[in-house]
Amino acid sequence: MDGVKIIEIKKSVFECNDKDADALRQELKAKGVFLLNLMSSPGSGKTSTLIRTINLIKDRLRLAVMEADIDSDVDAVKIKAATGVESIQLHTGGMCHLDAEMTRQGLDGLNLQALDLAILENVGNLVCPAEFDTGSCRNAMILSVPEGDDKPLKYPLMFSICDLVLINKIDVLSCFDFDLERCKQNILSRNPNARILPISAKTGEGVDAFAQWLIDEVRQWKAV
Amino acid sequence: MDGVKIIEIKKSVFECNDKDADALRQELKAKGVFLLNLMSSPGSGKTSTLIRTINLIKDRLRLAVMEADIDSDVDAVKIKAATGVESIQLHTGGMCHLDAEMTRQGLDGLNLQALDLAILENVGNLVCPAEFDTGSCRNAMILSVPEGDDKPLKYPLMFSICDLVLINKIDVLSCFDFDLERCKQNILSRNPNARILPISAKTGEGVDAFAQWLIDEVRQWKAV
Repeated sequence: MDGVKIIEIKKSVFECNDKDADALRQELKAKGVFLLNLMSSPGSGKTSTLIRTINLIKDRLRLAVMEADIDSDVDAVKIKAATGVESIQLHTGGMCHLDAEMTRQGLDGLNLQALDLAILENVGNLVCPAEFDTGSCRNAMILSVPEGDDKPLKYPLMFSICDLVLINKIDVLSCFDFDLERCKQNILSRNPNARILPISAKTGEGVDAFAQWLIDEVRQWKAV
Repeated sequence: MDGVKIIEIKKSVFECNDKDADALRQELKAKGVFLLNLMSSPGSGKTSTLIRTINLIKDRLRLAVMEADIDSDVDAVKIKAATGVESIQLHTGGMCHLDAEMTRQGLDGLNLQALDLAILENVGNLVCPAEFDTGSCRNAMILSVPEGDDKPLKYPLMFSICDLVLINKIDVLSCFDFDLERCKQNILSRNPNARILPISAKTGEGVDAFAQWLIDEVRQWKAV
């Protein structure tokens, strides 16, 4: 360990909410609604990515968005204004993540009968949201170029539970010491099955691939 | 609210650890040790900022670093290699923040008699670390340019509890729609007493001002 002392201060405060999550997933399946849980650090571009993506798919899927934030309704207002789709704000009251029960409370605020897809924009945080199964059908996350290509090594759980990793802000790749190939290797070392898509929510590059992934996943969920 | 529905899903899981934190602060005072709690999102540049800063102050203050991470010892090894100062890794075992008791466990791993300054690099997270008083003498945080100038509006508690806000990665200001003045106003609207210092851990710009702030704070803490 190169002479560095390591102190374990592990403390378990996580309650198992796996049962709630599985029950929610079964209900969603019965209702034919696909729930996507989208996670990232603060400022990685979740909302701007969603706006680009929703405008590509809103004529093909009936969808609504739940914006989870500690406070403010900035994101829900922004989504609704920029896309016209139904967007509700979930206030977590200081909580740093959503669990399955909180997600269910959010879904109760939507008209699920009229939806193919519900998107949950989780609280900006690479740690806690990874610990709690929300009941989603798929997990996706955004890692942005300025955060660094080493993040899969430092937040392994988040990368290991995501079916899809979007690498955002590739328009500023030249400004940073960010190695796209090394980043992909770091992600795959944590999660060999992860689908990885480089995008720029600013320029739109690569967003069509994310939109297609989402359409395919929703169709598959509803068909099986 | 512009027609956006807001659902409150507040749930209180935070235990009050204020008493522990106050007790720890009093002990540190008696021992003449200043504890800095440094927070930020993942990838904002905590470790690289610390390396620059420590190399400016290590001949003037006796210091050690505690690197809190969910896993890995990457940061502690990096700090030790780049500065030569004592650096220990605290594993939080999945926890997204440190409380006062966990901080105390970390401090027990240092030789406090030989220190003026202990720096705690908290877990990369803008939410939970703000909820828990670690017992630190001062709180500082880093907001990096790519995260956006609106973050003080979305993570108000973090900005309101910090004595100092470092705005890092100003070397890439031209790559982003980031308004430095608007960012300062957003910070001050949450915390009128915050000291704000723009820096670049990459080029070193502004880091001397942070180093001087730290030296002044430690001297004042030990003198009073």
